[in-house]
Amino acid sequence: MLVVDDVATNRLLLRAKLSSAYYDVVVAENGAQALQMARSEQPDMVMLDVLMPDMDGFEVCEALKAREETAHIPVIMVTALDTPEERIRGLDAGADDFLSKPFNDLALFARVRNLMRMKMMFDELRLRDMTSRELGIADFVGDIGADMDLDTCGPILLAPPSDAQGALWAEQLSARLAIPTIVTHSEREATNLARMELPDCFVVHQSLAEGGDGLRLVSALRSRPETRQSAVILVVENGDVHVAAKGLDLGASDYIESPFDISELIARIRSQLRRKRYSDRLRSNLRNGLKLAAIDPLTGIYNRRYASQHVLRVMERAHDTDGVFAVMMIDLDKFKSINDRFGHDAGDAVLKEFSRRLQENIRGVDLVARFGGEEFFVAMPDVDQTAAAAAAERIRRAIEGGSMPLPDGGAVEVTVSIGVAIATAADTDPEAIIKRADSALYRSKEAGRNRVSFAQAA
Amino acid sequence: MLVVDDVATNRLLLRAKLSSAYYDVVVAENGAQALQMARSEQPDMVMLDVLMPDMDGFEVCEALKAREETAHIPVIMVTALDTPEERIRGLDAGADDFLSKPFNDLALFARVRNLMRMKMMFDELRLRDMTSRELGIADFVGDIGADMDLDTCGPILLAPPSDAQGALWAEQLSARLAIPTIVTHSEREATNLARMELPDCFVVHQSLAEGGDGLRLVSALRSRPETRQSAVILVVENGDVHVAAKGLDLGASDYIESPFDISELIARIRSQLRRKRYSDRLRSNLRNGLKLAAIDPLTGIYNRRYASQHVLRVMERAHDTDGVFAVMMIDLDKFKSINDRFGHDAGDAVLKEFSRRLQENIRGVDLVARFGGEEFFVAMPDVDQTAAAAAAERIRRAIEGGSMPLPDGGAVEVTVSIGVAIATAADTDPEAIIKRADSALYRSKEAGRNRVSFAQAA
Repeated sequence: MLVVDDVATNRLLLRAKLSSAYYDVVVAENGAQALQMARSEQPDMVMLDVLMPDMDGFEVCEALKAREETAHIPVIMVTALDTPEERIRGLDAGADDFLSKPFNDLALFARVRNLMRMKMMFDELRLRDMTSRELGIADFVGDIGADMDLDTCGPILLAPPSDAQGALWAEQLSARLAIPTIVTHSEREATNLARMELPDCFVVHQSLAEGGDGLRLVSALRSRPETRQSAVILVVENGDVHVAAKGLDLGASDYIESPFDISELIARIRSQLRRKRYSDRLRSNLRNGLKLAAIDPLTGIYNRRYASQHVLRVMERAHDTDGVFAVMMIDLDKFKSINDRFGHDAGDAVLKEFSRRLQENIRGVDLVARFGGEEFFVAMPDVDQTAAAAAAERIRRAIEGGSMPLPDGGAVEVTVSIGVAIATAADTDPEAIIKRADSALYRSKEAGRNRVSFAQAA
Repeated sequence: MLVVDDVATNRLLLRAKLSSAYYDVVVAENGAQALQMARSEQPDMVMLDVLMPDMDGFEVCEALKAREETAHIPVIMVTALDTPEERIRGLDAGADDFLSKPFNDLALFARVRNLMRMKMMFDELRLRDMTSRELGIADFVGDIGADMDLDTCGPILLAPPSDAQGALWAEQLSARLAIPTIVTHSEREATNLARMELPDCFVVHQSLAEGGDGLRLVSALRSRPETRQSAVILVVENGDVHVAAKGLDLGASDYIESPFDISELIARIRSQLRRKRYSDRLRSNLRNGLKLAAIDPLTGIYNRRYASQHVLRVMERAHDTDGVFAVMMIDLDKFKSINDRFGHDAGDAVLKEFSRRLQENIRGVDLVARFGGEEFFVAMPDVDQTAAAAAAERIRRAIEGGSMPLPDGGAVEVTVSIGVAIATAADTDPEAIIKRADSALYRSKEAGRNRVSFAQAA
């Protein structure tokens, strides 16, 4: 934990308090030193004094959030003044929370635990993201501080203490924020709507209408997978530190004291949405990175690795239903000569156009894959010999029927040879089925290309 | 949270206690119902009574841990007896902790928070793992309960209250556990050795020799990335629930009360190591899944996607140092005829053997990639025209010089054509450099194959 304060006694005080709770503390005396130490020490959190000579706390916070190496580190701003204006300025600078001197230990440690938990999750995601970047398979996600587009956010769900308050919140928010709001009228309604509408952000008062309990709602939102990643801002009655601390321990992302300045609520919502966007992007980058391992880079269709796995699943389902399925191996005839005559770019264009046409001529449930080179593969569940023959013939004709455009404006005639195998409940090895289709393909080639051959049954 | 007890009043009591702390509670009356609800409700935690008719708590725990859908859910066993024998039996069944009636709230909630935190992390990792499995790019990781091989564990680091105790722990552990132990003699020594030895597990007493503080050591271990994932078992003096609760909140994985039965410590260590192994495997599967996106499945060398990214980095470094680097495009001559004459399996074998020989004939800092088909790529940092010519010629001869073995026992003579381009500080586009090498390759082909050509400078 990094404590930043220009006054030595303040540093000592906070350090003693945090050390007595067993946190590892390092200190910095000014902004420049803080930035340098945040980079080198990679603390789990920064406690930042607002009033400092040279660079004030807001500037230091902005600088921390603007740099990729430090943007993920939570920042708590420590202030003597504690006005809404100051809090809004801090939130806009990317601060995660505020503490006013003298410190309330309960509030301090609940917030520290909460931010630590969040940071551990981010660290886990960031680590994978760095792997993806090193491998060249992930775009740069950007930092938390960067202004992200909030227009495409899901709705904000409001759980107010009364219908009158709810109407007021909604009116004030919609006047200043281009995100739809949903006002709920009971704890039960909030729980149900949360599941249907999947809000990106919740604003939950500690006491809900009809005797509902805001803390119970926070806990329920956190225990459900659908809302676990959403932002939850708890509204606590002025000064009720116990409720705030309990809420943070239950997983609330932030809290605000009521009565509040609407600008402060908006600043907190924006700050939480930014943070959520960032983690959403880390997660989707990771998912996309993993997907790339199943995709052929040139054509964008699945690769052999994925197709083998898929055929295994199709086979298992066929066993369960006593059904049949068909697989095809398809080879572009004399493809090598296209590369030789027109160059690799032309060859690549033909492969892309071919996979496009192939996809147009199969059903949605069928799977198309590129096995490598000019060799393609199709798996067709619930398809017997007659239907497979029709599909193969349709594909053969679709390729024969129209020449392929080349990058230089020319075109080339292409044909395909196809081998088809029908798998039955007796088949147990996906590779054996693929091999049968491959042998049939070989016979199509031998017999003069541009034709469909069928494999013998297993 | 799922509460399992055959006695209605017990269920009500525990439910009320957990509900008042805002946890969502569902209940089951017997083992069969518990197993079914754990699957359908996917609770964050199971509180399991030990003494039940039909199926007792141990059996239910074992059944939960043996099934993939429920193995990751933490289990707390609730018992009236609380003997070391019972705890060891529970740990062996896969339980995460024990609570004896009547409950101490502080201990209960500290443990619940701790297990919740752990589960959230597991859920995050498991979600990615499921993606990998759907894509066919991850092996099945196995469940936590499965007996994993503990022989290859890192050492266990012991931080005892005194040298005498440390010697005793080490002696007792090494008599029963085939994992090396390291005894430390002060808090500072423990902190330093943790970084150098990277233990998989720590056993830390609350009071360390020379006035050291066990809780401070726990906190320090958790704040360092190298030890964040390690198991930490805190030893607390008999009955000191406050220290235990504080330790769990600081991130200890488990605690044991002193004086302890060595069998119980061993059971706890084994349980923690199993859990760590499981998360290590989830993490490495994820890393490997991401890596697959950069690897050519047939030859195991990098693919074009990764190579492009890599050339970008090599280029940036060359700019920084005003250096040069070389890239090669390599094509197997008349590869198509190998496929046609000997079949695809033979072609694949030749491609694999070729990439093996290629790797043997380059430096460790060079990068080899398969761009697709029979087209390969090499990037060589800090290499000028003379050195590149020598390397290319070495590769050409290595292929010409020995025939490639085929799967059927035969062999085939193969030659390669190579195009080399030298990039300088003036180059800014990696694709343009690759294209120059490709044009040079084309000239090698035109000139009769089995030769090396150089591209014009940019």
